[in-house]
Amino acid sequence: MKVLALDTSSIVATAALVDEDRVIGEMIINHKKNHSEKLMPIIQNLLEEVEVEIKEIDAFGVCIGPGSFTGLRIGMATAKALAQVADKPMVGISTLEALAYNLPFSQGSICPILDAQRNQIYTGLYQWKNKELIALEKDQAIGAEEWIEKLKDREKPIILVGDGVAKFGALFQENLQGKIMIAPPPVRMPRASSIGSLALQRVQEGKAQHFKDISPQYLRKSQAEQNLHNR
Amino acid sequence: MKVLALDTSSIVATAALVDEDRVIGEMIINHKKNHSEKLMPIIQNLLEEVEVEIKEIDAFGVCIGPGSFTGLRIGMATAKALAQVADKPMVGISTLEALAYNLPFSQGSICPILDAQRNQIYTGLYQWKNKELIALEKDQAIGAEEWIEKLKDREKPIILVGDGVAKFGALFQENLQGKIMIAPPPVRMPRASSIGSLALQRVQEGKAQHFKDISPQYLRKSQAEQNLHNR
Repeated sequence: MKVLALDTSSIVATAALVDEDRVIGEMIINHKKNHSEKLMPIIQNLLEEVEVEIKEIDAFGVCIGPGSFTGLRIGMATAKALAQVADKPMVGISTLEALAYNLPFSQGSICPILDAQRNQIYTGLYQWKNKELIALEKDQAIGAEEWIEKLKDREKPIILVGDGVAKFGALFQENLQGKIMIAPPPVRMPRASSIGSLALQRVQEGKAQHFKDISPQYLRKSQAEQNLHNR
Repeated sequence: MKVLALDTSSIVATAALVDEDRVIGEMIINHKKNHSEKLMPIIQNLLEEVEVEIKEIDAFGVCIGPGSFTGLRIGMATAKALAQVADKPMVGISTLEALAYNLPFSQGSICPILDAQRNQIYTGLYQWKNKELIALEKDQAIGAEEWIEKLKDREKPIILVGDGVAKFGALFQENLQGKIMIAPPPVRMPRASSIGSLALQRVQEGKAQHFKDISPQYLRKSQAEQNLHNR
């Protein structure tokens, strides 16, 4: 089974083709956020390199959030268009779960952090139990200090991943001394191969969906919606 | 500091550009082994996508082996040509260490396996001690059964990575019951971002070399050399 996965929920644009046994190809571009122009050429280039056509793909995986509102919509629109053209099912994967999946069989717990602006982070808590990645805390938008308070009772180490590390990593290290490990750059950002591998598992578990039934999970209202609500 | 890393020591062709804080771009193509034709277009495509020119690169990282003799020579020749053109230093990284670096902060020990043909594997044993990846056993060519015997006293889990898993994974699982975990596909194959991150650390430690001083480490004579020796 071939799964094409993509993600543009952050500054990173990434696409990968995976099957049960391997990553057939993967591209990650972490440079300028013109995803609406860049994503389709990246996917086309990937498929040409591995000599696979859209109609040969069995399912499509995409990050449903949290993340940049515009980035999520670009990724979602692209994945839905491809799923419709190929007439194949789709799987939506949590951006935070996909980040945690970058660190297979790691010690302790994994805490993905994305900057949610307005003094909040998007975060969650994951852990490997044997060969399974399980969620210890659900994905949420929360103040960084409040989240750090919740982590104080957790056993070490707590591994930080995600692009929120640049802004919040030092705060976590100061307040959770000796507990925090920061993931090295290669596994710190979204990788479509992780999204694709998780999506493939979900297809095998019968959890693939029609593209019409998948929508972004923002975890919080956009600033525009919040402003409207406050009026 | 920008480091361009590449590897063609297996069926995978991969290139990545990294700096201290992030992977700027990475490409992995795991499809047909025509590396002499494919590698430079992949590198060119990568550099165009991230808008970086060869002359802006500060160092070059390449896998020095073990691996396919021809593949290693193609990767080495390409990296040396780029280092010479850019007039910048190079770093050679063990293929096995780079595979182990795909699994940051993992539990237990990491055992990369490559098929060395003639009933042997290329292997080694690595472990994370805090934030450092250390070698427990040196890289070597050895019979699979003999290696499994050596692993029997090791604490669990032992995580297998590398493309030798397809051929030898079941043998390890049968003979080291309950101890073996097989790395998921996204981290099982060579990733140039891991090679680049290790190379960047070596540059920072003052271990960069002139391209003339780097050569492949085959760990064993080629079949042709062996035949000559036997005569």
